[in-house]
Amino acid sequence: MSPIATLRTPFPEKFGIPRQSGIVEAAHGRVEFLPEFDRPDFVRGLESFSHIWLVTLFHQSPPWDGKSTVRPPRLGGNERLGIFATRSPNRPNPIGLSLVRLVNIEHEPKLALEVSGIDAVDGTPVLDIKPYLPWCESRPEARAEWAGEAPRLLPTDQLVCPAELREKIGPADWNLITELLRLQPQPAYQHDPDRTYGMSIGKWNVRWRCDAERIQITELTMRET
Amino acid sequence: MSPIATLRTPFPEKFGIPRQSGIVEAAHGRVEFLPEFDRPDFVRGLESFSHIWLVTLFHQSPPWDGKSTVRPPRLGGNERLGIFATRSPNRPNPIGLSLVRLVNIEHEPKLALEVSGIDAVDGTPVLDIKPYLPWCESRPEARAEWAGEAPRLLPTDQLVCPAELREKIGPADWNLITELLRLQPQPAYQHDPDRTYGMSIGKWNVRWRCDAERIQITELTMRET
Repeated sequence: MSPIATLRTPFPEKFGIPRQSGIVEAAHGRVEFLPEFDRPDFVRGLESFSHIWLVTLFHQSPPWDGKSTVRPPRLGGNERLGIFATRSPNRPNPIGLSLVRLVNIEHEPKLALEVSGIDAVDGTPVLDIKPYLPWCESRPEARAEWAGEAPRLLPTDQLVCPAELREKIGPADWNLITELLRLQPQPAYQHDPDRTYGMSIGKWNVRWRCDAERIQITELTMRET
Repeated sequence: MSPIATLRTPFPEKFGIPRQSGIVEAAHGRVEFLPEFDRPDFVRGLESFSHIWLVTLFHQSPPWDGKSTVRPPRLGGNERLGIFATRSPNRPNPIGLSLVRLVNIEHEPKLALEVSGIDAVDGTPVLDIKPYLPWCESRPEARAEWAGEAPRLLPTDQLVCPAELREKIGPADWNLITELLRLQPQPAYQHDPDRTYGMSIGKWNVRWRCDAERIQITELTMRET
């Protein structure tokens, strides 16, 4: 197994990345093919599909620790479930599966796919790309008890940002930052109003505080890259 | 990457296996965990899910030949498409993705999952098992032009079997054989009425002839295993 492409995303760090694909449409990524696969022929006909699978490597997760269970953040971190009953990145074979929308196929200067709804850290190796087949892979009737619904989004009016910070930033970046923070990336079991959280989103460093009801952006600075 | 389980299926050979998962519900498989993973803890909570992903290895496909395109059988074998625009098993990293229904979790004598709708050859190594998340992985609106619909099934009354053969076989096996043959496993571009096709299905060897309209079972014998 060796990568066929590298995934570029607005997420230089793991903290704050949406926990599944397709949640944050504004999160665009680019699948950049490695030289061996940088030929239009490899994706001939891919434009017939609106959605594709990216089979990825969880390259930034530590090697599997041999434990059979993990504590999914969706359950507040209190309950242990079997690794194979979760989507945790910490698993025996660190393979990720992301269903993304195919936005554009770029042929120049190199072969790349623009995708949206990404949930992976920048630099993620891509092992495979497959077209999504709705007639056999869309099963809306499937049961998934505790993981059956999209995560709750904080209402927009509970995300507060001082005007002088808001003015720094263009509409696309603001939209992405808003969608990500509404997911309340801080651990579900932590509502410490004195704690400041931070994440990097594209070219921005964002810092915020929160309580159970509200997120308050406190800092918004340009990243040094 | 090393397997966590072995998939047992009714398909000892590649020819005739349904081309995607979920098409033939009657095709049941068993995911048998390897000794290192043979502990109930690994699947604790999996019963919350009706459907699961099996990430598999296409272990019987020849190593990738370096070609950028393949000829999907769905297009009659005449048109070349990019590997990453198809689900061909002959790909740079031979990773398969099967969405199956979880029928039962067996704890005794060993940890195993009974699944249905399987599309893999017997003995397929399983690299990972993940729960299916309908809220982000079910996209009925996805576009998939030439691969947008389930394959056409031959009407039941066009599948013909002499009574003396039909009598040999129980209802479950007959149902599986019927569902598989209605998929018309012979290559789409071959309708040679003089040719006999054969495949092994569970404990049976089945042979048939076909033309564009009809499949006629000609032989049904017990496999020597």
